[in-house]
Amino acid sequence: MEGAQAVREALDGDVTVHEVFVTATAADRNPDLLDRAAARGVRIGPVTDEAAAALSETVTPQGLVAVCDLVDVPLADVVDGATFVAVCAGISDPGNVGTVVRVADAAGCGGVVLAGDTVDPHNGKAVRASTGSLFHLPVTRDRDVPGVLDACRDAGLATLVADGRGETGLYDGGLADVLAGPVAWVFGSEAHGAGREVLDAADHRVRVPVLGRAESLNLATAAAVCLYATVAARTPVTCG
Amino acid sequence: MEGAQAVREALDGDVTVHEVFVTATAADRNPDLLDRAAARGVRIGPVTDEAAAALSETVTPQGLVAVCDLVDVPLADVVDGATFVAVCAGISDPGNVGTVVRVADAAGCGGVVLAGDTVDPHNGKAVRASTGSLFHLPVTRDRDVPGVLDACRDAGLATLVADGRGETGLYDGGLADVLAGPVAWVFGSEAHGAGREVLDAADHRVRVPVLGRAESLNLATAAAVCLYATVAARTPVTCG
Repeated sequence: MEGAQAVREALDGDVTVHEVFVTATAADRNPDLLDRAAARGVRIGPVTDEAAAALSETVTPQGLVAVCDLVDVPLADVVDGATFVAVCAGISDPGNVGTVVRVADAAGCGGVVLAGDTVDPHNGKAVRASTGSLFHLPVTRDRDVPGVLDACRDAGLATLVADGRGETGLYDGGLADVLAGPVAWVFGSEAHGAGREVLDAADHRVRVPVLGRAESLNLATAAAVCLYATVAARTPVTCG
Repeated sequence: MEGAQAVREALDGDVTVHEVFVTATAADRNPDLLDRAAARGVRIGPVTDEAAAALSETVTPQGLVAVCDLVDVPLADVVDGATFVAVCAGISDPGNVGTVVRVADAAGCGGVVLAGDTVDPHNGKAVRASTGSLFHLPVTRDRDVPGVLDACRDAGLATLVADGRGETGLYDGGLADVLAGPVAWVFGSEAHGAGREVLDAADHRVRVPVLGRAESLNLATAAAVCLYATVAARTPVTCG
């Protein structure tokens, strides 16, 4: 993990941090962060600017890098007993994956499954876009998308895939009852959607209504709209 | 406007395109686009790669640049008679402004107001993030945020500002009735929110519920969630 914000979130999150490498300049700038690391028994290794740059993935390194355990857990830890799960099925942009993890956290998902060819959540851009949420809720990786859908179904979750040509509108009357129950939302690739196999395997193919002349929503905003429609369906509303 | 996609959308949109500059390579790649420009009576000017690079804002120019009218219209054209408007009040990231315009288009807003210090919608990144929506619905610019709120109210729109500490939850019972009526949604700056003056002037300060451990949503996803909650509130649902 790289940069003051990500390292701080890792220290405050559920992941094990082994060591923090820090330049003299970064140490001067972040005394509280080093105090926190020390209090948690994390080794602190002073490094030169050159060494910090070599450890960094970014163009302008902040001089602060933490060595952490990988965040991912077994699939069963995410789906078993869950009532609300987000599944990324082939999302290739790290910023999108990080944003979906952040929105899933905010919407109260129990966990996120990164399935198929979805980008590695440990990618620096994904970590930054998640703004700490990667350390807040269980995340799992699994190459086998149909297997993930089966596991969700076995865990009692209805599977809903977001699809611009889906037969069910997000605000169609019947869907609110589905959303109020245990659900796994599946979001496919930016370029190609979820793919035929996933669409066929899911219980519902759900269309976010597009009312104006826009062709579509981008993936992260569509995911936010779907996940929050689930929050809305679970919020008691007085009718009549 | 720069690049094949933006130029195509400008040609298909409501904006006046005066001239298209194109390199020999780009002309070979986009014959349909040039046919369309010619059919609309747009002048086509062949240029060298060097000239195209000089016209470009991007690192890897596509060799295709269109000269268009500015897209913005008077404020009254956006708010008068409208039932659903999005107001950006000090949004500084062009990608965010473009995404909000795209989501506003998809959600069926009648127009978008770019108020206060909001970035110029003609910025290349904003145009690209809007994926054509900048040419689909009326967009206006106005420095005077309180004046924009007054104009919205005078046009009969309830003013709702998205605010993480707002007193009304997005899915609170009473708000659905407000959302079903004429509304202007106001989204403040990424860093500082909408600011005290705007918060005080708005009819409702509305909080997107954050259920997990995420601190907040990013601006574009929060805007998408608010605008689509409005779509949901206007979709007939059977109760009881």
